[in-house]
Amino acid sequence: MPLDPKRTVAELKELRALTGDENGAQRVAWTDTWLKAREWFAGKVKALPVEHHYDAAGNNWVTLRGASDKALLIGGHLDSVPNGGWLDGSLNVLAGLEVLRRFADAFNGRPPVTVRLVDWADEEGARFGRSLLGSSAFAGTHSTAADRVRTDRDGIKLEDALRRCGVEIDRFPESAKERANAAVYLELHIEQGPVLEKMQLPLAVVLGTKGVERHAVTFHGQEAHSGSTPMNARRDALAAAAKLALEIRTIAKKHPDAVCTMGSLKTFPGIVTAVVGRCEATLDQRDLDRKILAQMYQEAVDASKRFAAEEHCTVEWSRIWNIEPVPFHPQLLDLCDQAIRETSATSPGNWSGTSSAKSHRMPSGPLHDAAEVSRCGIPTVMMFVQSLNGISHNKIEDTREEHLELSVAALDRLATKTTNWILSH
Amino acid sequence: MPLDPKRTVAELKELRALTGDENGAQRVAWTDTWLKAREWFAGKVKALPVEHHYDAAGNNWVTLRGASDKALLIGGHLDSVPNGGWLDGSLNVLAGLEVLRRFADAFNGRPPVTVRLVDWADEEGARFGRSLLGSSAFAGTHSTAADRVRTDRDGIKLEDALRRCGVEIDRFPESAKERANAAVYLELHIEQGPVLEKMQLPLAVVLGTKGVERHAVTFHGQEAHSGSTPMNARRDALAAAAKLALEIRTIAKKHPDAVCTMGSLKTFPGIVTAVVGRCEATLDQRDLDRKILAQMYQEAVDASKRFAAEEHCTVEWSRIWNIEPVPFHPQLLDLCDQAIRETSATSPGNWSGTSSAKSHRMPSGPLHDAAEVSRCGIPTVMMFVQSLNGISHNKIEDTREEHLELSVAALDRLATKTTNWILSH
Repeated sequence: MPLDPKRTVAELKELRALTGDENGAQRVAWTDTWLKAREWFAGKVKALPVEHHYDAAGNNWVTLRGASDKALLIGGHLDSVPNGGWLDGSLNVLAGLEVLRRFADAFNGRPPVTVRLVDWADEEGARFGRSLLGSSAFAGTHSTAADRVRTDRDGIKLEDALRRCGVEIDRFPESAKERANAAVYLELHIEQGPVLEKMQLPLAVVLGTKGVERHAVTFHGQEAHSGSTPMNARRDALAAAAKLALEIRTIAKKHPDAVCTMGSLKTFPGIVTAVVGRCEATLDQRDLDRKILAQMYQEAVDASKRFAAEEHCTVEWSRIWNIEPVPFHPQLLDLCDQAIRETSATSPGNWSGTSSAKSHRMPSGPLHDAAEVSRCGIPTVMMFVQSLNGISHNKIEDTREEHLELSVAALDRLATKTTNWILSH
Repeated sequence: MPLDPKRTVAELKELRALTGDENGAQRVAWTDTWLKAREWFAGKVKALPVEHHYDAAGNNWVTLRGASDKALLIGGHLDSVPNGGWLDGSLNVLAGLEVLRRFADAFNGRPPVTVRLVDWADEEGARFGRSLLGSSAFAGTHSTAADRVRTDRDGIKLEDALRRCGVEIDRFPESAKERANAAVYLELHIEQGPVLEKMQLPLAVVLGTKGVERHAVTFHGQEAHSGSTPMNARRDALAAAAKLALEIRTIAKKHPDAVCTMGSLKTFPGIVTAVVGRCEATLDQRDLDRKILAQMYQEAVDASKRFAAEEHCTVEWSRIWNIEPVPFHPQLLDLCDQAIRETSATSPGNWSGTSSAKSHRMPSGPLHDAAEVSRCGIPTVMMFVQSLNGISHNKIEDTREEHLELSVAALDRLATKTTNWILSH
C-alpha cells in the first residue's frame, strides 16, 4: 500500500464533519467532542499492526515496533480551540497516520526503527488557559501545583475535567517514561501566518520556535476633566501608551524575524469626558535569538520610561509569561530541507511556478508541542505547509489541497531520511 | 444685615453633612437625598420676603419682587453626581441665596429690579445621562421625545422618576414662561480645572462655554496571530489609533484654549496573542470659537484617514454629540471683570500676592446651565472661583475657604453692577 496523501485530505474532511459545526472545529480538549475525535482516530488505527495506548497525561500513543528500539516520533494534536480550523493539529496527526501506514506496509509491519505517532493532550489550552499540557508532562516541564487549581469559565477544575477522561493529574510525571528510546521528533504543521503564501512556496523548514517575553505594561497619569484641563496641564496615560504602541514596531523592525505586538490596551476611567488616568497594555515580543529577545525587551522598558517621563506619568511592568527560544536540531533542519526539495522535484506541478530547488527556512512564532519535546533533549524538527490568508484558530483556516498532499509526501520523505539518520547515530 | 460670605461656607458644610457620606455628595437629581437638599433649602428661604415655587420642569425659583419687573436671575443647581463634591452647583445656589438676603435687607424687601434665584433641576444628568435638563426646558431647547424613554441603570424610566417628584415631562414646555422679564443671568461656579490655581488667581471672568464635537472613531484592520504575522504583513488597527491619539494633541495646541481628548480606547479581540483587528476610540474636541472647532474636527478626520491608509486599515466616524460654542454677553464680561478687580482691591489679603488689579478671562470647557440660558437670548455671564488640584466630580473636590468667601463678595458686587446695567437699558 503506497503513501496516499489524498486519503489524508479525505480523513481530515471526515473528522471535520464528525467534530465541527457551522462555527468551525469544536474539539476542545477534555470535552465529549474531543473524546469522539479520539474514538474515531482509534478506529482508524485498529487495522494497523500497532500498539495503542494513552499515557498518564492523556497523550495518545500509536507504536509500530521496529527492528531497533530507537524510536522515530511523529506528533500532532486532535484538540482544537473553540470555533477552530480543520487543519491546526489534525493535519499533523493524520499525515503521521498515513506515514505510519506506509512504513507498516513497506517493511511488512517491522521497520528498521520503531515509529511512534503521538496525539498530544490539550495542546491548545483553550479551556483552562494552559497550552502544551500533555507534551509538557512528557517533557517533565509541567508543574502540577500551578495547574491543578485552574478552572474553566464554568468553574470546573482542571483536575476534575481530566479525571472525567480517566487522567489523574498526580500521575502526570509518569508520562516521562514515553521518552525512553525517543531518537527524533518530527512535526508537520500549517504555518498559521502569511509568509509562505506571499513567497508562493508550499513548504518550509522550521528553524525553531521563537522565545516569548509577555508583559503587562501599565501607565499611571491623572484622570482629569476633558473640558476644563488645558493640554499642557495633562498627565495623559493614553498618550504615553500610544507612543509605546508605535515604538515597539521600530524596535521589532531592527531584526528580520522579530515581532512585537500590543494586543490589548485598556483605558480608565475610559469615558469620553475624561483624560485617561490609567492605561493598561499588553506587550508580546518574540524572536528565535535569545539575545535579540532580551535586547528588544530592554529597549521597550527603556522607551516606556522615557515616554512616561515625557507625559508626567509613571509606568510599571509585570511579566505575564516568558519562554526561551527553542532552536531545532541543525542536522534535522538539513534533512527537512532535502525532503522538501526532493518532494518538490517529483511534484513540479504543485509548486506554483517557483523553482523546484527552492526551500525556505523560517522560525515559528506560535509555540508547538515540538518546543516541549526539543527542550527535553530529543532532536526535533518541524515542517510548515502554507496557510491561506495567514488565518488560523478560525473556521476559515484553510490550505490548498495540493499543498496538503505535498506536505504528507514531504513528511514521509523526511521520516525515511530520519530513519537512516537514527540508524547511523 | 450685611453680606456674610462666611455664612455661605457654613451653609455649604451644613448641606454636605446632610446629603453626603464618606464617598462624597449624593444629591443625584430625582432621588430622596436630592429632595432632602431642596427641603433644607426651602427652610432657608422661608425667612425671606420672597415667593418660592417649582416650575413645570422642576426648577426651583425664589423671587424677590423689585420696583421693576425686569429680573436679574442668579442660578445654580443643588443636584450632584454620585460620590460628588461639596461645591459643584451648590456654591452657586448658596452664594446666590446670600446675595438675595443682602438685596432684601439693603432695599427693605423691594430692590430696584426683581431678583430671582433658580436652583435648576438635574444639571448633571447623572442618573439618566441627560445633563442641563431643567435649564433646557426653560430655554425651550429640550426635546421631550428624546428624553422620556431614557432609563436609569435599574430600568426606571425618566418620566416615572420625574412623576414621583411631582414633575410631568409633558408639561416641560410650560417652564418657558419663567423667561418673562428675564434681563440678565449670572452664575458663579468652581472652575473644575487647574488654570486659576496655576496662575495663583482666586477668580476669573468666564468668556463663554466651549463648543463640543464628540465622535466615535473606529479603525478596522485585520486580527492576526501575534507570533506568526510578520511586522510588514500587519494591518494593526491599534497602530492607526495610537497615531491619532498623539496627533490630536498637535491639532489642539495650535490654539490657546482648545482641547482634544481621546478618553476611551478599546481593542478587539483585545488579547495578548493577537494583532488588534478593530480599535474603537472616542474623541472630544472643544473650543470657544466655532471656526477653530470646525477646523480641529476636519484636521482630525483627515489625519485619521491618512493613518488608516498608512496602516492598511479603514476608519469610520460617527458623531456622538455636539453643541455650538456659547459666548457670553460682552458688556457683562466687562462688569464681571470690574467686580472681580474691585473685590480684590477691598480684600488684598486674599489674593495670594498677585496684583490686586489683575483679572483673568477664560472659556469654560465644561458646560453649565448658563449655556442654555444664554442660548435663548438672555444676556449671561459666569464667574469662576479657583479649584484645588483641578479636581471635581469627586469627594476630594475643594476650594480654599477664603476664595469661597471672596467669590460670594464678587458675585454680590456683580449683582449690584448688573442691577444698574438693567436699569440703564
